[in-house]
Amino acid sequence: MADKAKIAVLGASGYTGAELVRLLLRHPRAEIVLLTADRRAGQEMRAVFPQFAPFNLPKLVTIESIDWKSAGIDLAFCALPHGTTQTVIKDLMAKAPKTKVVDLSADFRLHDNAAYARWYGHDHQAPELQKEAVYGLAEIYKSEIEKARLVANPGCYTTCAQLPLTPLLKAKAIEPGEIVIDAKSGMTGAGRAAKESMLFSEVSEGFHAYGVGHHRHMAELDQEFSLAAGKDVVVSFTPHLVPMNRGILSTIYVRGIDGKSPEDLHALLLKFYEKAEFVHVLPFGETPQTRHVRGSNMTFIGVAKDRQPGRAIIVSALDNLTKGASGQAIQNMNLMLSYPEATGIDQVALFP
Amino acid sequence: MADKAKIAVLGASGYTGAELVRLLLRHPRAEIVLLTADRRAGQEMRAVFPQFAPFNLPKLVTIESIDWKSAGIDLAFCALPHGTTQTVIKDLMAKAPKTKVVDLSADFRLHDNAAYARWYGHDHQAPELQKEAVYGLAEIYKSEIEKARLVANPGCYTTCAQLPLTPLLKAKAIEPGEIVIDAKSGMTGAGRAAKESMLFSEVSEGFHAYGVGHHRHMAELDQEFSLAAGKDVVVSFTPHLVPMNRGILSTIYVRGIDGKSPEDLHALLLKFYEKAEFVHVLPFGETPQTRHVRGSNMTFIGVAKDRQPGRAIIVSALDNLTKGASGQAIQNMNLMLSYPEATGIDQVALFP
Amino acid sequence: MADKAKIAVLGASGYTGAELVRLLLRHPRAEIVLLTADRRAGQEMRAVFPQFAPFNLPKLVTIESIDWKSAGIDLAFCALPHGTTQTVIKDLMAKAPKTKVVDLSADFRLHDNAAYARWYGHDHQAPELQKEAVYGLAEIYKSEIEKARLVANPGCYTTCAQLPLTPLLKAKAIEPGEIVIDAKSGMTGAGRAAKESMLFSEVSEGFHAYGVGHHRHMAELDQEFSLAAGKDVVVSFTPHLVPMNRGILSTIYVRGIDGKSPEDLHALLLKFYEKAEFVHVLPFGETPQTRHVRGSNMTFIGVAKDRQPGRAIIVSALDNLTKGASGQAIQNMNLMLSYPEATGIDQVALFP
Amino acid sequence: MADKAKIAVLGASGYTGAELVRLLLRHPRAEIVLLTADRRAGQEMRAVFPQFAPFNLPKLVTIESIDWKSAGIDLAFCALPHGTTQTVIKDLMAKAPKTKVVDLSADFRLHDNAAYARWYGHDHQAPELQKEAVYGLAEIYKSEIEKARLVANPGCYTTCAQLPLTPLLKAKAIEPGEIVIDAKSGMTGAGRAAKESMLFSEVSEGFHAYGVGHHRHMAELDQEFSLAAGKDVVVSFTPHLVPMNRGILSTIYVRGIDGKSPEDLHALLLKFYEKAEFVHVLPFGETPQTRHVRGSNMTFIGVAKDRQPGRAIIVSALDNLTKGASGQAIQNMNLMLSYPEATGIDQVALFP
Repeated sequence: MADKAKIAVLGASGYTGAELVRLLLRHPRAEIVLLTADRRAGQEMRAVFPQFAPFNLPKLVTIESIDWKSAGIDLAFCALPHGTTQTVIKDLMAKAPKTKVVDLSADFRLHDNAAYARWYGHDHQAPELQKEAVYGLAEIYKSEIEKARLVANPGCYTTCAQLPLTPLLKAKAIEPGEIVIDAKSGMTGAGRAAKESMLFSEVSEGFHAYGVGHHRHMAELDQEFSLAAGKDVVVSFTPHLVPMNRGILSTIYVRGIDGKSPEDLHALLLKFYEKAEFVHVLPFGETPQTRHVRGSNMTFIGVAKDRQPGRAIIVSALDNLTKGASGQAIQNMNLMLSYPEATGIDQVALFP
Repeated sequence: MADKAKIAVLGASGYTGAELVRLLLRHPRAEIVLLTADRRAGQEMRAVFPQFAPFNLPKLVTIESIDWKSAGIDLAFCALPHGTTQTVIKDLMAKAPKTKVVDLSADFRLHDNAAYARWYGHDHQAPELQKEAVYGLAEIYKSEIEKARLVANPGCYTTCAQLPLTPLLKAKAIEPGEIVIDAKSGMTGAGRAAKESMLFSEVSEGFHAYGVGHHRHMAELDQEFSLAAGKDVVVSFTPHLVPMNRGILSTIYVRGIDGKSPEDLHALLLKFYEKAEFVHVLPFGETPQTRHVRGSNMTFIGVAKDRQPGRAIIVSALDNLTKGASGQAIQNMNLMLSYPEATGIDQVALFP
Repeated sequence: MADKAKIAVLGASGYTGAELVRLLLRHPRAEIVLLTADRRAGQEMRAVFPQFAPFNLPKLVTIESIDWKSAGIDLAFCALPHGTTQTVIKDLMAKAPKTKVVDLSADFRLHDNAAYARWYGHDHQAPELQKEAVYGLAEIYKSEIEKARLVANPGCYTTCAQLPLTPLLKAKAIEPGEIVIDAKSGMTGAGRAAKESMLFSEVSEGFHAYGVGHHRHMAELDQEFSLAAGKDVVVSFTPHLVPMNRGILSTIYVRGIDGKSPEDLHALLLKFYEKAEFVHVLPFGETPQTRHVRGSNMTFIGVAKDRQPGRAIIVSALDNLTKGASGQAIQNMNLMLSYPEATGIDQVALFP
Repeated sequence: MADKAKIAVLGASGYTGAELVRLLLRHPRAEIVLLTADRRAGQEMRAVFPQFAPFNLPKLVTIESIDWKSAGIDLAFCALPHGTTQTVIKDLMAKAPKTKVVDLSADFRLHDNAAYARWYGHDHQAPELQKEAVYGLAEIYKSEIEKARLVANPGCYTTCAQLPLTPLLKAKAIEPGEIVIDAKSGMTGAGRAAKESMLFSEVSEGFHAYGVGHHRHMAELDQEFSLAAGKDVVVSFTPHLVPMNRGILSTIYVRGIDGKSPEDLHALLLKFYEKAEFVHVLPFGETPQTRHVRGSNMTFIGVAKDRQPGRAIIVSALDNLTKGASGQAIQNMNLMLSYPEATGIDQVALFP
């Protein structure tokens, strides 16, 4: 591979696609050579996202117009809608076995075929790849990602919940049966599809929960938390929409076990993330704000005492488009291509 | 009393003061005869709130310039900061014993002197009035309010949490020791004081929790929930700030007892609020949005199944300035003056 | 006609439809008996606008299901998309000649067939009605509206520009050839159609102009300003989108003629609107904010000196859904049904 | 000078200070060695701006605690309030003559003592430095800036207006007496001082003009436009506040002279900015949005035809904290220290 890896972004007309392009344009070891957007094929990227007008970027093409064999892509990011993704990646990896893939959809996040079928209502179209895919939470699966050919980039809600909870569950420090995750997301998490419920006037100046009791992200949480705890874990999880663009904040209610105090949980997280480039644990009692990680790949985690003895309130915050999607995808790319982990994703948060 | 009660608003330069004026200007049985704002005394209301420019309103005066004996006020709303309130009301009620008072501050909400001193760090300055004051949650204490001379208007967060939970605790339908209230408020709940943390650029485009583990509203919740349950109740409660002006949404996690299902809890609330003018219980499984109660005195409550058997997620929404403050204050005034409960506060929500 | 007029709202699933319902629900002389929404027919209004859940309203039906002859409608508001409107109204008025109509679309605003065809690219489908229709700017055409059967409710941008400029042009106080109108609107002015460009994340946290040099609203301005000035007037007009829901603010740059100073222009407007219920002229030098008229039918107008001798800056503000659409429509209804002009639309602005 | 210049930021607790730190933290040739904030002295930067928690930064100190002689600062950014700035810089430059200064306040922008006294109501405290200071609009005064010791960084409104207008005035392509600049700014332009008028609830969900007819930025515009045109120019300029954090958009109405068409003006700007790193001229007829330059040092300019023959509408957009303040300040630093002009300020805009 040359000094700069040749990169494709499939699905460049959505928000995670734009965020990939924003970051890759300034990545010293990456060169964007291919951008797809089926409905906008033939157009310049600037017609879809005017902020890219000053930059030279390849024109948008359809996926089916690509000859994967000769394309010479080192790594492809796949930011396509759920469902179509698995057939696109199956085809790509069959024709270009040396091209690595980071998939930002949910298609390859569940390891278990049966669980996939149960949550999504149909069989997986690429079961072998499903088996091969590595779950791309770099703070937990770093060594697996380094060797992977296909990485399933975690969801934004689930990244925000796993980063504080997985180390605590692994350490058997909290009661797995009493976890309540109250999550709040900015609007970019819902994508760029033109839906009435996502219009400015339907979203601004108000707040609401959605998918109460049955959100799909729970499948991913069930899998990862059960793995971490070594037994079946089912959490209470409620997502909400905040009238803001970027950011997820999770307020998490837990009970320490075996006498573990909130201070103990804090110490445990502090130690676990001692050397992490993208997780910052705040001093005990402080809690984070989403605005202070905006546009950065950073996750902030705070731990405070609840009023009820033995219980703690943990608050985590990240930017759903960066650490929650495209930044994390590039973090995975860096590991897969043996670059230093923070290459090109060390932006300082944009506040105000 | 004449056809229109003579009304004073103490503290008219804050947001709850403005909301009182907005509603009273169109109340068919009320006439605003006195407006105070110490720092803005001598000014017209339009200088403080330009939306009132087209209306005839009395000039702002200081509280100390008022001769309560001769003022002939039927009812005074007190929208003053915590602390000074109790001495102002003590003085007012001593000099004008026929003037009724609805207090929007926290000063008279706690019945217990010791609890007051513990939460606020000093003894109450008007302990007799503290004893006399009626807690003004009209849906629960209607008959007491009708006879009251001094009503302590509930807090906005606590109204939003009590309306769904108090009936369930009274009915012993939920486990009092396992209640988690994750509450989110618009910015007007924080008042109009010029603080850096409340500037547009500190608040918009982001989300955060505050007062984690030790918010003062908990004193009021402890009192009322313990009364309802007939034993000490301590809940987990976390307030958050939403970049919006009006609205509180509470996401509440509860466990039914004695086999009470989420559907049972829903049925119980539906029955309890059958005739309530200002509480609307949504069909089972639906949850509310704050924008749909904006500017109205209405509370919307939804109940849904949690994934964990036996657990329910309850979501309640109200406008913190209306049902959470000034609308509820006028609801109390209506009861105290023997007007129909909804007089002047039947506005339809403003959406979008 | 009975004590309450029987009212139909055609197109009740859009924002101006919802605003009509909000206002009509509290109008003492109006009863909503018919609501249409073709794509939502069969549904309850609460499914489309949850804020109406507590109210009894007729179910949504299709327009074609209505038997106009027997419907007994006193007045129909037509809040349908441009184009289809003219055939719907033609049919309605043919079948139910006693039903009066207030049309909120642009279909009947232009008096001139040729101008209509030039701006809209096709001939008008109801040219006789186009001739009969009265332009519904109540502050200018009150007596015509009182006698009208069909009123064309003005556009929101044009109302905001005409209220300050028409009296000045009629008085020949400003130079008609040097008017610059820089207009800014909240998002509800763009309606409720699901378009990518209207998504929260495309609109919030940014600002832009649109339709620069060729916006359709100019046809209406040309007509009315030319009528007022007694000669052809062509103004510079640029609309912009503000990340807010409600409100239009127009910043207007004019030059006084015949020695008319900014103070003279102010005095002229003050006198013209002396008895107007819904136009408030601020003291000289003060300029308005949209938030102070939100949810009300009020227009605020301010006049200030420009730095260049002889030039003035005029700023006008209104709520595009109320005075800019549905409130003005009800104002027209009141005049058409011989009710006092402000009946049911005297709400105080909702701020904050 | 070493590989990295030693940089001081005076006034690091305001928004332009934070933006300087954000950019300097990733500038390959700069090292932050000194941060001041008088009222926050002794605190860590993370207490003032939590987004910097993960970074090593010097503690905040007072200005008076600094020994300028021994501090060894290569370049100081001065982001202090107007007025105090001139005495601080006078003292600094007397004690450390080798330290270069980029001043972000208005103190050194006016060349003329009399004009300064007229606009600010007092004599300048450092008249010699006022004479020496170079006006830091890099696109116009590049060679002067390269040699300067003290650069007066332009204002945000004025940068946004000068970039499109100065080349046109220099080329005598537009009528200097008929320029109308209607400018709209995000809230960070107003700084971080705790004022009632800047609270979230006073600013969100509304729009207004301010300082109509007499804004201080006009002094700077008068000076620069008169220089460009070679004669006295007085423009109409009205600033407005948009409920957003970052961004300025100027809608500018001009008349071409000597038969210059809007297309000619566009061609002229395209040519003038052919090699500019931070000005991008859009295709004729397209106009920019502030969100597409957010967080970047880029200015977008669009030119469109007005309806009135011979008149054009020009729209320019930039981020007031980046190109309008701190990004431009670093652009000036780069020139003063002989670095490539775009070093460290080539961030891609953050949208959405």
